[in-house]
Amino acid sequence: MSEKKTEEAAVYIGNKPVMNYVLACLTLLHGGHEKVSIKARGKAISRAVDVAEIVRKRFDLAVDVENIKIDTEELTASDGSPVKVSTIEIVLKKTK
Amino acid sequence: MSEKKTEEAAVYIGNKPVMNYVLACLTLLHGGHEKVSIKARGKAISRAVDVAEIVRKRFDLAVDVENIKIDTEELTASDGSPVKVSTIEIVLKKTK
Repeated sequence: MSEKKTEEAAVYIGNKPVMNYVLACLTLLHGGHEKVSIKARGKAISRAVDVAEIVRKRFDLAVDVENIKIDTEELTASDGSPVKVSTIEIVLKKTK
Repeated sequence: MSEKKTEEAAVYIGNKPVMNYVLACLTLLHGGHEKVSIKARGKAISRAVDVAEIVRKRFDLAVDVENIKIDTEELTASDGSPVKVSTIEIVLKKTK
């Protein structure tokens, strides 16, 4: 049995297929992490919700959503102008 | 002064510009609703977060996120096969 890891692990959602990120979450949870934080910005937010829902419902893991936060980040575009982008953080936690 | 409306008002996010939905939320909040529920499915989820963040941060309203829920709905495709789609519900509430 693997030791429990207390630090929170994060998975950043980009443009790869959803299953890549699902696998990353499962690897962390099976590797002893109690929580996984799924983070995304902009259009990747929908994919972050897909990842959380697949991890939560389709696998033989007792995992549930602990917390969901939304926020706004200010980035700088290539021409130097400020761009606001929405972010999401979904924390999944083992329930047993 | 408008009377307080206790029932929850919902704004369903589709493919229109973000500002259409922001305006719908502001109209409900200014019209006396204490809460607005922003609902979206699939790729519209990112837009729902944008709408919530804009209502929360850019206007002169004391509004904050009360709750965020994610879920999965099973729909039927045109060929009759089942399709799973993620959903989000973001509840905004007046803070004073």
